[in-house]
Amino acid sequence: MSQTAAPRDITDYRPAQPRPAAGAELRGGTVLVTGAGIDTALLEPLARQGLTVRRPASPLTEDLLARELRGAVAYLHGGEERATARALRKAHKTLKVVAFLGVGYENFVDVAAADRLGIAVTNTRGAATDAVATFTVAQIVNANLGIPRHLGERVPGWQGSDELPHELAARKVGIIGMGANGRRIAEILRRGFGVRVSYYSRTRKPEVERDLGISYLSLLDLAASSDILVVMVPETGETRSMVDSSVIGRMPEGAILVNTARPAIVSPGALYTGLEKGRVSMAVFDGFYGRECEEAGELRRDFPDRLLVTGHIASHTAEAMHRMVRQAVKSIENVLTRGSDEHEVGTRPRPRF
Amino acid sequence: MSQTAAPRDITDYRPAQPRPAAGAELRGGTVLVTGAGIDTALLEPLARQGLTVRRPASPLTEDLLARELRGAVAYLHGGEERATARALRKAHKTLKVVAFLGVGYENFVDVAAADRLGIAVTNTRGAATDAVATFTVAQIVNANLGIPRHLGERVPGWQGSDELPHELAARKVGIIGMGANGRRIAEILRRGFGVRVSYYSRTRKPEVERDLGISYLSLLDLAASSDILVVMVPETGETRSMVDSSVIGRMPEGAILVNTARPAIVSPGALYTGLEKGRVSMAVFDGFYGRECEEAGELRRDFPDRLLVTGHIASHTAEAMHRMVRQAVKSIENVLTRGSDEHEVGTRPRPRF
Repeated sequence: MSQTAAPRDITDYRPAQPRPAAGAELRGGTVLVTGAGIDTALLEPLARQGLTVRRPASPLTEDLLARELRGAVAYLHGGEERATARALRKAHKTLKVVAFLGVGYENFVDVAAADRLGIAVTNTRGAATDAVATFTVAQIVNANLGIPRHLGERVPGWQGSDELPHELAARKVGIIGMGANGRRIAEILRRGFGVRVSYYSRTRKPEVERDLGISYLSLLDLAASSDILVVMVPETGETRSMVDSSVIGRMPEGAILVNTARPAIVSPGALYTGLEKGRVSMAVFDGFYGRECEEAGELRRDFPDRLLVTGHIASHTAEAMHRMVRQAVKSIENVLTRGSDEHEVGTRPRPRF
Repeated sequence: MSQTAAPRDITDYRPAQPRPAAGAELRGGTVLVTGAGIDTALLEPLARQGLTVRRPASPLTEDLLARELRGAVAYLHGGEERATARALRKAHKTLKVVAFLGVGYENFVDVAAADRLGIAVTNTRGAATDAVATFTVAQIVNANLGIPRHLGERVPGWQGSDELPHELAARKVGIIGMGANGRRIAEILRRGFGVRVSYYSRTRKPEVERDLGISYLSLLDLAASSDILVVMVPETGETRSMVDSSVIGRMPEGAILVNTARPAIVSPGALYTGLEKGRVSMAVFDGFYGRECEEAGELRRDFPDRLLVTGHIASHTAEAMHRMVRQAVKSIENVLTRGSDEHEVGTRPRPRF
């Protein structure tokens, strides 16, 4: 066996040349689609391209996923499985694209491995903006007014202050992150409720400031001047634990923290201290820290009535799901036919045309 | 005892001449203030008028109220007591005004009796518009997304459909009543969330239609075309059970009924049938039918997971309470010094100047 024919260490694999776009030769290729709740009718464009859709029962273990991926040219990731480096590696000869259904792919797709394998990864950012923003604003009002403690028998044990809550219009809201979701949240708060809004983001958005009448502050100044601090940034290495003790320590006493982005943006230890010291009166999460997070249990144990937690449902509307699936299908088509898609994440070398 | 000196049948009493406005001679008069949670500092304008504030412990029975009212020139009603004809009659020689803290005075002040006695009754309409509208919009989103069933351990037993909810922006909202509160709700839904809104009210409001881009429909047409039907009218003889079986019977299957006005606007029997037949998927109330209402228990028993009930808290914000008390104090001053006030309710003959 010659040196070059030996299996390469795939973890170091970098294609010398980007893969050419797949075309008519893909007719008869297979698309793996995972996750329940995806309307079959929305997958029809794939069939029209001559692709065969494979929908295995979930949940998929790594081994089952690797087996299901064999021979697939595309993979619509709508389930809870983890597309690990090992699973992707088994499929890399045929697999061109992983279309993640949602925004926060970090815990579900090993994008670094996909990049190395030349597999495009896309997400469906933008498709659920309205759903996420509406949900977030509702939770802002719910937390601000303490509505859950008033839901009668439905909310036993939920207690809170007997003081009258403040009106939303009398609160200063700070938003961390001014992407599509952050902007839509700001818009609803400004145009609907007339709330004063400031924001922090990595890059200033002067046109949004003008358009919505919101002002830019540094992260620490934003924390210091917000009665309600909203977290709306994607989870990346840079944003993980971005809301740490220096941020929470600046919050005015009794402030509300609303994190409808990924939990890990907020440091659980810093949150614990913030709740304990009264900087944070209530914390809202949509999805909570996993079991591997030691502080998660302590937070739940010590502050049961000051956490308002839902199970990652912000984007779960029929319309958002519809748009997400359509967008993921379109991304698959784009990568297969043109070699790239505008919703790619990661740093895969792009083919040039 | 001459005929004219005999006690008159006070229920038939109509002052031949409206009372003259009270002036400086009221110096030293007493104002009865009931209800906890009223900031004493807000009552200072009364003291500056030379009036003495009397704040008895609550709750007040009819007899206790009658005793406390003795000699009072004004009565700020902020408690749960009922200002009955009998209690008012005992005070009619001195009492000029009952300032009700809130909007829905119907169950708390016998306005007909006050009218007959020449006692002005005011309420604080307008003061809580922002609070009520914000709360109502939050409950619209909560019900529409089924958020309570996702609040983890806090909401045991809350179930609902496993189907994905529809986005708010994809829902048609109908508002019954286009007073200040209805208008503000429409404004938040239109300008903030971009929802399609129609309305019904006794009198059309063309300027609101133009301003907000909402359309007028008859009550039955509104019911037939609304995914979410919002009730926002005061309780009067005319509006009680206004949402009856003919209205609920027209609602599209699975519609949501949001009543943050008084419960009695919605017929409990019609609601029961609507829930049973599936016309109504969920009903939101802020305050529920009293114990004297037989259907209330049946509703709670048979549809525990399809009622979203809070305890009449929509207007309970610090800012709204502040504005309400200030407005009630102003109304008292106006009636005592000028003989009338713009926030009077009822049909008392007004003094002429």
